[in-house]
Amino acid sequence: MDALTKSAAVPGTDLSFGGWMADRAARIERALDAKLPAPDAHPTRLHQAMRYAVLGGGKRIRPLLVYGAGELTGAAESALDCAACAVEMIHAYSLVHDDMPCMDNDVLRRGKPTVHVAFGEAMAMLVGDALQALAFESLAAAVGQGAAAAAVVTMLAELGRGAGSLGMAGGQAIDLAAVGRTLSREALEDMHRRKTGALLAASVRLGAACGRSLTEPERLRLDRFALAVGLAFQVVDDVLDVEADSSTLGKTAGKDSEQNKPTYVSVLGLEQARVLASSLRDEARSALAELGPGAARLVAISDLIVQRSS
Amino acid sequence: MDALTKSAAVPGTDLSFGGWMADRAARIERALDAKLPAPDAHPTRLHQAMRYAVLGGGKRIRPLLVYGAGELTGAAESALDCAACAVEMIHAYSLVHDDMPCMDNDVLRRGKPTVHVAFGEAMAMLVGDALQALAFESLAAAVGQGAAAAAVVTMLAELGRGAGSLGMAGGQAIDLAAVGRTLSREALEDMHRRKTGALLAASVRLGAACGRSLTEPERLRLDRFALAVGLAFQVVDDVLDVEADSSTLGKTAGKDSEQNKPTYVSVLGLEQARVLASSLRDEARSALAELGPGAARLVAISDLIVQRSS
Repeated sequence: MDALTKSAAVPGTDLSFGGWMADRAARIERALDAKLPAPDAHPTRLHQAMRYAVLGGGKRIRPLLVYGAGELTGAAESALDCAACAVEMIHAYSLVHDDMPCMDNDVLRRGKPTVHVAFGEAMAMLVGDALQALAFESLAAAVGQGAAAAAVVTMLAELGRGAGSLGMAGGQAIDLAAVGRTLSREALEDMHRRKTGALLAASVRLGAACGRSLTEPERLRLDRFALAVGLAFQVVDDVLDVEADSSTLGKTAGKDSEQNKPTYVSVLGLEQARVLASSLRDEARSALAELGPGAARLVAISDLIVQRSS
Repeated sequence: MDALTKSAAVPGTDLSFGGWMADRAARIERALDAKLPAPDAHPTRLHQAMRYAVLGGGKRIRPLLVYGAGELTGAAESALDCAACAVEMIHAYSLVHDDMPCMDNDVLRRGKPTVHVAFGEAMAMLVGDALQALAFESLAAAVGQGAAAAAVVTMLAELGRGAGSLGMAGGQAIDLAAVGRTLSREALEDMHRRKTGALLAASVRLGAACGRSLTEPERLRLDRFALAVGLAFQVVDDVLDVEADSSTLGKTAGKDSEQNKPTYVSVLGLEQARVLASSLRDEARSALAELGPGAARLVAISDLIVQRSS
């Protein structure tokens, strides 16, 4: 029997994975709500739009990775809140900008009208810009919550790299250029390692950085996990874009092929894409195997990423 | 005789203000060039566009404030480079986004086609997004250059606040909502304190944070200076928008009135706007007077800001 299924308790903790997930989901929602300016704070419309973009939706995969990696290094939960808010705000800002007419021009996100549809294009741009600033600012608050200043500097460097031109924003630029082109599997993997993998990997690193220092072999294993799980996430995304309908996804289904974007399904075929997702999950598990019982949450998260339906 | 005119040497330094300015201008250009990814680094088009947006233009007022405030606290020059690059990259990203069609829709900046004209709208959005991430990442590098980790955390919090929804991005949102409306002088001041003042004030604070700790009275004086000089900058901008031509400004002149935006000139009249700029300069000087000879560069910078012609 798999000790890491949703119903099983993780050694050393009181909660089953399902219970832990629900607890973390409520926790990140509270933390985001507290870090976002109040809806009646001036300028109110901007703050309302920022809250609309961030609260009440999303799978919160990146915060889960932060909390999961933080369990491995015994990090203070309140420091992890700061890191979890930071990565989720970066993710939320990227969705707002990505949905705009000059990018993917999408009207539906998390089952709601996209920010530019609800608040206008200029406001959507500012929402993204302000969320990115708030994400970084959020890291600074970890110092008062049990993280060392040196840990915050590490997180700052990791988040900057993960979000920037060599990470997420760079992946978006490659994605733009790839529309209508045929990519090799290697080029597709490079694009996704940047576009989604970099921020997912940063989430793992930020969570770990909040706690005790890792040894170099531990750090390498955790990085192997982060890279595998980051890529697995995207492969599954591509599969779901073909398989699921819009109401399950909460966003427009089938848009990749409609927009003529290369995906793992278009490059490998649906069946091989599924096989790849599964083998990346195995790679993620194998990287974690030697990290001991503290890594149990991360194992369960990688299972969740591969088995999700939306 | 005014000891702080351009031709006079500042006590304790070898350089006249003019010489110091030229030296800093060359220094920030080198630092920005080194921090920006190379033009042949993948994804090349994004990196070329980022370099286009940042290098070879601009008055570099914010970096000058960083270096000037750093002289006051005896900060290491290489730490100041990191802070100076950070504030200038935030400024550059805000110009790229502000010029886009959904915002001001401007085609000329620093005498060149704006980024979205030269590289397309989607790329302009990503250029701004990636520059903001690189700005924050740049702060982390100050640790290896003589700044303490705690100083970097202070800078991170200040830059996040200055750039975010309560600072620059918030000011832009207020600006959007103000088009075509009549603003009171107080509302106009609030808008500008956020839109341009917040990042200028952050520049002063970041530069000071790289060196020795300030006493509380010193910190308050420096803040009074920063707020006055930040507002003076905007008042002068409004005056120049009416008085100068596009070739002197390097951007489209007269666009505020054309876009029906409230300005200090439209609210106070040209003559009273000039009087206000001059009295803010006096306020800035008076705040610095008790900070001693270390503040001499800041005095000269505030004179420069009020007396500039572009």
